[in-house]
Amino acid sequence: MTEPSREDCLTRDAADPLAHHRAQFDLPDGTIYLDGNSLGVLPKSVPERIERVIRQEWGRDLIRSWNTADWYTLPARVGGKIARLIGARAHEVVAADSTSVNLFKLLTAAVRLRPGRRVILSESGNFPTDLYVSQGVSGLFDGIELRTADKADIAGAIDDDVAVVSLTHVDFRSGQMHDMATVTEAAHEAGALMLWDLAHSAGALPVDLNGCGADLAVGCGYKYLNGGPGAPAFLYVAEALQAAIDQPLSGWMGHSDPFAFVTDYAPADGIRRNLCGTPPVLAMAALDAALDVWDRVDLQALRDKSVAMCDVFIQLVERRCDGLGLTLASPRDSEMRGSQVSFRHAEGYAVMQALIDRGVIGDFRSPDLLRFGFTPLYLRYVDVWDAVDILTDILSTGSWNQDAYKRRAAVT
Amino acid sequence: MTEPSREDCLTRDAADPLAHHRAQFDLPDGTIYLDGNSLGVLPKSVPERIERVIRQEWGRDLIRSWNTADWYTLPARVGGKIARLIGARAHEVVAADSTSVNLFKLLTAAVRLRPGRRVILSESGNFPTDLYVSQGVSGLFDGIELRTADKADIAGAIDDDVAVVSLTHVDFRSGQMHDMATVTEAAHEAGALMLWDLAHSAGALPVDLNGCGADLAVGCGYKYLNGGPGAPAFLYVAEALQAAIDQPLSGWMGHSDPFAFVTDYAPADGIRRNLCGTPPVLAMAALDAALDVWDRVDLQALRDKSVAMCDVFIQLVERRCDGLGLTLASPRDSEMRGSQVSFRHAEGYAVMQALIDRGVIGDFRSPDLLRFGFTPLYLRYVDVWDAVDILTDILSTGSWNQDAYKRRAAVT
Repeated sequence: MTEPSREDCLTRDAADPLAHHRAQFDLPDGTIYLDGNSLGVLPKSVPERIERVIRQEWGRDLIRSWNTADWYTLPARVGGKIARLIGARAHEVVAADSTSVNLFKLLTAAVRLRPGRRVILSESGNFPTDLYVSQGVSGLFDGIELRTADKADIAGAIDDDVAVVSLTHVDFRSGQMHDMATVTEAAHEAGALMLWDLAHSAGALPVDLNGCGADLAVGCGYKYLNGGPGAPAFLYVAEALQAAIDQPLSGWMGHSDPFAFVTDYAPADGIRRNLCGTPPVLAMAALDAALDVWDRVDLQALRDKSVAMCDVFIQLVERRCDGLGLTLASPRDSEMRGSQVSFRHAEGYAVMQALIDRGVIGDFRSPDLLRFGFTPLYLRYVDVWDAVDILTDILSTGSWNQDAYKRRAAVT
Repeated sequence: MTEPSREDCLTRDAADPLAHHRAQFDLPDGTIYLDGNSLGVLPKSVPERIERVIRQEWGRDLIRSWNTADWYTLPARVGGKIARLIGARAHEVVAADSTSVNLFKLLTAAVRLRPGRRVILSESGNFPTDLYVSQGVSGLFDGIELRTADKADIAGAIDDDVAVVSLTHVDFRSGQMHDMATVTEAAHEAGALMLWDLAHSAGALPVDLNGCGADLAVGCGYKYLNGGPGAPAFLYVAEALQAAIDQPLSGWMGHSDPFAFVTDYAPADGIRRNLCGTPPVLAMAALDAALDVWDRVDLQALRDKSVAMCDVFIQLVERRCDGLGLTLASPRDSEMRGSQVSFRHAEGYAVMQALIDRGVIGDFRSPDLLRFGFTPLYLRYVDVWDAVDILTDILSTGSWNQDAYKRRAAVT
C-alpha cells in the first residue's frame, strides 16, 4: 500500500461531510494548526457575541443584565450544550471555574461518599494538575492517600480500599484512550466511584457517560470546545448522585436561594450545588457562542474523520520520515487512540520550533514528544499532507538544528 | 444649614479634581448609575483590548500567545496593579478565580497555620458567601467551627480559640466600615490571623493592608474595579506568611514549575502558590485594561469625593424626603462608612423598581434596603442631586405603588 498523495487528500476533502464547518472558524493564513488539543481556534460567532456582551449587556444595561440577558443561568445553559457531546443529560452538566477547581470539588465529594475507603486511585501518567489536585484533596482527610498505577495496571489496582478512580480518558501525552465502559464497570464492581477527566475527549470524539454509568466527570472548555484561552471548565454529576454530593466550595451560586441572603448554607437541588462564586460572564459567553458550532455536528462523522486523519498522518510520517529519528508514541490501533498523534524525537523541542517557524503549529511535551492534535471541524486532509511535507523537509535537511530553535520559551 | 441646590452641585463638579476621569468610562445615556458597588461600568479601554485579545492574540497567534502576549503572567501583573489600591506590595497580590474560591483557599490555609485553635470567627451579617465558604471550610476539619458575632461585638469575641478572624471591611448592606487597624491588632493580640474581604473597599477608598499588618485578604474585580461581570477576583497574602501558606487547591498554576509536568506537587515560592487552574485570559485581560484607569488616581482625593457625595446624598434625602418612609441604614459618621448609602423603606423593592424605571440605578437588598453606591471616578455631584430629585418625586407621588414594580425578578 502506498501512502496517499496530495491529490488523494484533496479528493477526500471534497467528499468530507464535515468540510462546511471550517467556514465557521477564523483561521490564520499560512498556518496549519495542529494544536486544537491545547487551545482551540476562534469560532467566528465569538467576537460578535462578546462585542454585544461588552457594549450592550455590560455597557448599556449594566446590572439589569443579570435578569434581562440571563447571565445568572449561563453556567447551566452552557453545561446543557456540552451535555450532548459527552453523553449526558442537560441537567447533569454545568460550566464553572477551572478544570482543576472542579476536580477538587468532585474528588472531595467522592471521598465523602465512600467513608471508610482510603484511596484515590489514579494513573502515574495522568495530567499533572489531576495528580496535584488529588494530593490537595487527600491532604484534607486523615488516612486518605493518592495511589497511582501505570495505565495498563489500573483495572487490577481497583480494590475495596478505593473510594474513587480518577482518570483522564485520553492521555495528554500519547493520546491513548481508556476503555471508559470497562474501567467504569471495574470501579463499580469494587464499590468505587468513577471520575473521568474529559479534557481531551469532549469535542474530540463521542463520549457516553450515561451509557457507561460514569458517576462524575470534569472537562476543559478551551481545547476541542474552542471556548478561548482559559475558558470556563465543566463538571458532570450523574443524576442519581446529585442529591448526595457534598462539595466544600460552598459559595453563594451553589445555594438553594442565592439571593435570599440567608446566613446558613443550604445546597441547591441538582447540579447547581456544584457552583461556587459569581460566573465569569465574558468567558462564559465566549464559550456559549463557541458551542453553537456543535448544534448540527454528527459526532460519529467527527470520530470517523478524526480516525482517518490520524491514520493518514501516521502513515505519511512513517513512510516519508523513515530513518529520520521519529518513533510513534501513540497507539497505532485507532480504537485505543483519541484525536491526537505523538512522535518521539531526541531533539523534539527544536524540531517543534522549526515546524512552528514554518507555520505548522503543534506542541512539545517534555522530554521528547512532538504532539499533534487533529480537530475534524476545521482541519482538512490536505493540511495533514502539507504538515507532513514540511516535517519531512525539516528533518531531512536538518534545518531544526539551530540555536534559535533550542532556546526554550517560558511556556512550552 | 440648607441643603445644596442643583447649582451648588454643578459648582462642586466644576471644581472636582477627579472630574476628568469620567471621560474614561462608557456611560449609558439617561442613567444615573448608583450600583457600581454591584457591577462597575464599562471602562472605554476594555472593548479595544478585548478585541485585540480575541482577534489577534487568540485568533491569529493562538497558542503562541502564552509566551508572546504573556498570558501566563496575567494573574501576577493584574495583582500588581491592584496592590497599590489596597496598601500592598505588588508581589503580595494575584488575580484568580472568584472571591468565594479565594476565600476558601485562604481560610483553609489559615486554619492550618493555627493548629489547635478551633474557631473561624466572622460576623453574623457578613456577606452570605463568606459565611457559606467558612461553613465549607469548617466542615473539612474535625472540631473546627464557624462562630459569628454581631459587628459591634467582634473585638470582644476574639479569644485564643480563634484561628482566623474573617470580616468584610465594608458591610454590603449598610456600608458600615470596620476599623481595620484596630480589629487586626485585636486579632493579633489573641494570636489569631486576620483576613479581610475587600469586595466593597478596593477602588472605593484607600486601604492599607501593610500598614495595618493584615495577614490575608480577598476582593472582587467587578465592583469598584470595573473589571466586568464576574471578573476574576484577587487575593493577598502578607509577604511574611507566603512561604507557610498551605492551601488545598493545588492546581498546576500554583506549582513551582508548571510546565515541567512532574508528578508531585511542589508549591511555587511566593504568592503564585495560591493559583490553581489555567487563568481565564479574556476576563483577566478585561480587568487588566480596566485597572489602567487607576494609574493616576489620587486615592485620598477619591475618598474625599466619596465622603462628600455620600454626605450630600444623605442630607438631600433627609431634607427632601422627610416623612416619606425612609430611614437611614448607613452610618451618619463618614469615618465609619464606605462608599455607599442605604435607606430602609417598607416597600423598598417597589421603590427601587420605580427608580430604575426612571433611570436611577441602585439595588435592593432584602428585606427593605435601598442601596446606593457612589463611585467617585464617574459620578458627579449633579447626578446625586438629580437622583434625589427623582426619588423625592416617586415617594411624594406614590408612583412606586404599582403591581409592575412589586413583581420580583429572579436576581434582586
